[in-house]
Amino acid sequence: MKISELSDRSGLTVQTIKFYLREGLLPKGTATAATRAEYDDRHLQRLRLIRALREVGDLPVAAITRIVSALDDEKMELHDLLGTAQYALGPHVESRADDGDWRAARQDVDALMAELGWRVAPDAPARDLLAQTFLALRRLGFPIVLTELRPYIEAAAAISAHELAKVTADAPRERALQGLLVTTVLYEQVLIALHRLAQEDVSARRFGDGPHGPHSSPGPDGS
Amino acid sequence: MKISELSDRSGLTVQTIKFYLREGLLPKGTATAATRAEYDDRHLQRLRLIRALREVGDLPVAAITRIVSALDDEKMELHDLLGTAQYALGPHVESRADDGDWRAARQDVDALMAELGWRVAPDAPARDLLAQTFLALRRLGFPIVLTELRPYIEAAAAISAHELAKVTADAPRERALQGLLVTTVLYEQVLIALHRLAQEDVSARRFGDGPHGPHSSPGPDGS
Repeated sequence: MKISELSDRSGLTVQTIKFYLREGLLPKGTATAATRAEYDDRHLQRLRLIRALREVGDLPVAAITRIVSALDDEKMELHDLLGTAQYALGPHVESRADDGDWRAARQDVDALMAELGWRVAPDAPARDLLAQTFLALRRLGFPIVLTELRPYIEAAAAISAHELAKVTADAPRERALQGLLVTTVLYEQVLIALHRLAQEDVSARRFGDGPHGPHSSPGPDGS
Repeated sequence: MKISELSDRSGLTVQTIKFYLREGLLPKGTATAATRAEYDDRHLQRLRLIRALREVGDLPVAAITRIVSALDDEKMELHDLLGTAQYALGPHVESRADDGDWRAARQDVDALMAELGWRVAPDAPARDLLAQTFLALRRLGFPIVLTELRPYIEAAAAISAHELAKVTADAPRERALQGLLVTTVLYEQVLIALHRLAQEDVSARRFGDGPHGPHSSPGPDGS
């Protein structure tokens, strides 16, 4: 297909596609004339992945370049490829090794991972993310206890098993990567929205009017 | 206690406390002299709640004023009080009723809530949050199917039941509200961090080296 069709089908402008070609994010097409090239489905797939990384992951071009290089490195195993993409996603929190409270929170995270037996790299950014939250909870007078964490641990494990079950080692790497990216970023938002909705439902059942009351599902403003 | 002790124990400066007094967020103390007042534990509890709302919820003073008014309105039932606080929390997304795709996504959310039988107000902001995510998924070529959502729905319901089980109707409203706020904002971050960590663990088990391989938990950079 021509670049104009590639533009139509990917939803990206010709100008944007030319930028990705210059940056090396998109492999060159097959030259058919001095100023014309032919593109195929692999180019379209790559553009869709880049678009997802930009729009969903909100990733800068440098991070996308890293992910695309990993994708093109056939020797990199799928686990490391998925990790490269996940580590590139935010939110990133700064490790504050000079803060004793922060170090204690980070040690709690490491102890938790060891206790659960989870195979997570020592430098996984999510360890710092969890440490930051542990620290905030403790400062507000909410101590971290395992029984309190248990339902969240179980939910995270169940969801991850479901998500990774859809990825197969022999499927196209590009598709696996896009799938993981979407589940990580967008399904985390789905989970948060559903959490808020479920909270309201449980609260309505426990503290609201009964189902046969004057208004069956009162909003906070009483509407 | 004097305002200086209130400052020490709440971790807020005297200047900030005086600002909250002027804004009516904190009830006045008992005057003991022309320029002195005595404060008690109720003031301290209120300050801790305000601090949590500001630091954890990142809420503007106007939103905190609304929540504090609801708290002081003894006639407001607990369900409506919790809803007022939850609705004040972000993220808020704009309803885009002029966009046909957006309306379709929002209808999908409403249909899902009806199918699940969840008691959620028609104007709950989390409905729009979920609609926005549905729309983004569809635009990237990931259709929304109930079987795909099921693990997230089950996780959200289990977590919410656990969280609300700790709230009792006869407990102090201030404490219940602070607890809900913390679970909503901070435990959602806990959940996201644990999700990332669990993903890595499941990926390592499925696609990484075996547990007896050369490195038992390889990071994406091969470390």
